[in-house]
Amino acid sequence: MDLLLAYDVDTTTPAGRRRLRRVAKTCEGHGLRVQKSVFEIVADDKTVLRLLHDLEQIIDTATDSIRLYRLPPDGFNHVQTLGTAQVQPHREDLVL
Amino acid sequence: MDLLLAYDVDTTTPAGRRRLRRVAKTCEGHGLRVQKSVFEIVADDKTVLRLLHDLEQIIDTATDSIRLYRLPPDGFNHVQTLGTAQVQPHREDLVL
Repeated sequence: MDLLLAYDVDTTTPAGRRRLRRVAKTCEGHGLRVQKSVFEIVADDKTVLRLLHDLEQIIDTATDSIRLYRLPPDGFNHVQTLGTAQVQPHREDLVL
Repeated sequence: MDLLLAYDVDTTTPAGRRRLRRVAKTCEGHGLRVQKSVFEIVADDKTVLRLLHDLEQIIDTATDSIRLYRLPPDGFNHVQTLGTAQVQPHREDLVL
C-alpha cells in the first residue's frame, strides 16, 4: 500500500524539537522523506498499525498532528511536482 | 478529484517568507489547510493546471518544493489521524 504521512509538531519548546526528531526518525524507518514533514511510505495494514502506535507514543496529542493518507496504487509515481520536488524511486526492499 | 498538496518553501529570507504567504494564500483559494504546509483540495484537471501554473509563478524553483498527490475517491474521509488532526468536512461548494 502506498501512503503519505504528514506531520506538524509544535517545536516552540525543547521537548517539541525532541519529539520532531523522534517522529522523523520513526518515519525514516518506514519510508522516504519527500519534504521536511512529509514521507512516502509503502506498508501493509499491520505495519501501519505499528507505525501509528509508535508515533502516538512520541507526539503530544494536544499540540501535534499526524495525517496518514492512502494513495491509489502507484500513487507516488503520479505525483505532480514543482521546484526542487522530485518523484522518488521506492526500492522494492523498502516494502515492510 | 481529491488532491493533497504539500509544500516546502525556503523561509530563511524575507523574500522566502513572502513566497510562503503567497503560496498559502493561493492554496486557501482552492481548498482546506489541514496542516501548516498541507492542503486538501477538490478540483478538476483544468483547475489543477491553473493552480500549478499560479504556484509556479510564486515559488523559487531552485529552493522551494511543491508536491500534488491524487487521492482515491473519498480519500479525505479515510485519512488516519493522530493528535490534533481532524477529518475535515469539505463543503460541496468548494468544488471549483
